[in-house]
Amino acid sequence: MKTIKDIAALAKVSIGTVDRVIHNRSGVSKKTKERIEKIIQEHGFQINKTARILALNKKYNIAVLMPTVESSSDFWYLPKKGIEKASEEFEMHRISVNYFHFDPLNLNSFKDVFDKLLENSFNAVLLAPIFLNEAKERLIYLDQRKIPYVFINAELEGANNISYIGQHSFDSGALAAKLMSLLINTEDDILIVKVRRDNVHHSTIEDRISGFKSYFNTRKTPIQIHEVILPKIKDQETINTLLHKKLTNHQIKGLFIPSSKVSVVANYVEEHKLKHLKLIGYDLNEENVHLIKNETIDFLIDQDAFFQGYEGTKTLFNFIINNVVPPKNRYLPIKLLTKENVKYL
Amino acid sequence: MKTIKDIAALAKVSIGTVDRVIHNRSGVSKKTKERIEKIIQEHGFQINKTARILALNKKYNIAVLMPTVESSSDFWYLPKKGIEKASEEFEMHRISVNYFHFDPLNLNSFKDVFDKLLENSFNAVLLAPIFLNEAKERLIYLDQRKIPYVFINAELEGANNISYIGQHSFDSGALAAKLMSLLINTEDDILIVKVRRDNVHHSTIEDRISGFKSYFNTRKTPIQIHEVILPKIKDQETINTLLHKKLTNHQIKGLFIPSSKVSVVANYVEEHKLKHLKLIGYDLNEENVHLIKNETIDFLIDQDAFFQGYEGTKTLFNFIINNVVPPKNRYLPIKLLTKENVKYL
Repeated sequence: MKTIKDIAALAKVSIGTVDRVIHNRSGVSKKTKERIEKIIQEHGFQINKTARILALNKKYNIAVLMPTVESSSDFWYLPKKGIEKASEEFEMHRISVNYFHFDPLNLNSFKDVFDKLLENSFNAVLLAPIFLNEAKERLIYLDQRKIPYVFINAELEGANNISYIGQHSFDSGALAAKLMSLLINTEDDILIVKVRRDNVHHSTIEDRISGFKSYFNTRKTPIQIHEVILPKIKDQETINTLLHKKLTNHQIKGLFIPSSKVSVVANYVEEHKLKHLKLIGYDLNEENVHLIKNETIDFLIDQDAFFQGYEGTKTLFNFIINNVVPPKNRYLPIKLLTKENVKYL
Repeated sequence: MKTIKDIAALAKVSIGTVDRVIHNRSGVSKKTKERIEKIIQEHGFQINKTARILALNKKYNIAVLMPTVESSSDFWYLPKKGIEKASEEFEMHRISVNYFHFDPLNLNSFKDVFDKLLENSFNAVLLAPIFLNEAKERLIYLDQRKIPYVFINAELEGANNISYIGQHSFDSGALAAKLMSLLINTEDDILIVKVRRDNVHHSTIEDRISGFKSYFNTRKTPIQIHEVILPKIKDQETINTLLHKKLTNHQIKGLFIPSSKVSVVANYVEEHKLKHLKLIGYDLNEENVHLIKNETIDFLIDQDAFFQGYEGTKTLFNFIINNVVPPKNRYLPIKLLTKENVKYL
């Protein structure tokens, strides 16, 4: 473990420059910043004990911007549990966590809640920037106020987040495609089912779809890929009508649902006894686990939801309290589950 | 957290009976033992502080019976790392770990090394009972001397081990079979390749094979399953001859290698450009990772090797020092890897 002086000497820069990098302040070239960060990561960084004790006596406010959690079967239930666990562990540092919840299927809700967050003052922000453009416009205000932020679940290229913690969505889509190519024949078609309210770019979902399509494109298979958008997940009748219409195409054998909403489709498939259809989806909520156990869903991809919240929160705490600079990308395992291994999590 | 008195009251037995169960001594009926263990697991157990301090001043010797580790690409490299990490964490308790290494392909080596272990005195034993019958014969002596032992990697039904930590081998074989059924057609044949020196029952391997065969049996597919034993993994010429002979059967399209030695077969497949063959094997040593990245191996199943050693050792320490009774079976995740997700571990 090195002091700030040692790091400055190793990087051949002034102590002020190292300090600027550690506190994520501007005025350091990208190249120098990267060199200093590399040294810190390699040698570790022993912070000044007195400064640390002062820091421990301060109070910190963290804002969390994430979708609403209504029940334990919601995807965001586990990340929230992770945030709570991390907060408890750091309680002695007097940290308070303030949640700003939005409807993940509703763009306006995301904008409104983010704007509300910006009206307040925080030491750090943990967020899922699932609507890319709208997030980008608002992150500028965090940058201006030098408030550090960490992304979980959804990635946003080129942003000044100190870290991203989540799955590599593109590669996880590619994996889904590989499995789909094993489940169906080359003369079959595939249907991608998106569940959402707004017709906007939802980053995680779109990245998964890009990865999925890219797998088939590079292999030049004759497989046709269709898409359908299910607009309101609570209106099962509309869902049934839309799915029924799409599935009159009897070439369709594989269904890829790039979200935890795979159960919406799986319930339709189960009800209509469409056993010849192969389903791949995401996440291990109770309903999905039931549907993979009875083999209505063939493969589920899990993304360590609890860990995203837990590690995201710890990363922010360690940055603002202990000056620990995290890796920019923290890609989590892409876990593959079937009926056979779902009981051993 | 309850005291021994509370547990006795809850279980409606004497304090002496609870004490006997905690220290794994005989004289308690199986039913009572299970009832007491259940109460301990549900309520936790607050041990006597004075007794604990005395215990902390004692010295403990742990014996580890496991295969030889020659290089970092050996499967047993990671479990050994895990044992070392757990030992370091518990060093203040003055624990010494003594290794007894055997050749995992050689039955006599297992017997000799186990016999040597039994000549010494230990407080607890961590072992991989990969040769079932030979292990059974020798575990009696540990039982007689009331020495607690934990199994890692290989399971042995009906033994008095305090815990097993490892994969459910049968189910992991069934998962391999499901994937194989997706990789090949119903008119194809499968070859199971075993690598070993002795013609004995090697429990983990055989359990994986049982699970694999069972998957196809219950589905009554017309797929034929062949087997071959590769006797000496260092003699590539014999391997090549045996594989070549087997692969003149042009029906064979899928190869299942139920061990980390999948690289031996994959290297042959790569060298002879047999790209039409599908390979499924186990474990993430360097060579296997290379072979899955270039898609010579289609699927690898990983079994949390580091965790087996780490958790196995911690379980024994906590049992002998803190009286913590572990769950009898601690089944680890069956992790599925392909070229697409192998980089996100």
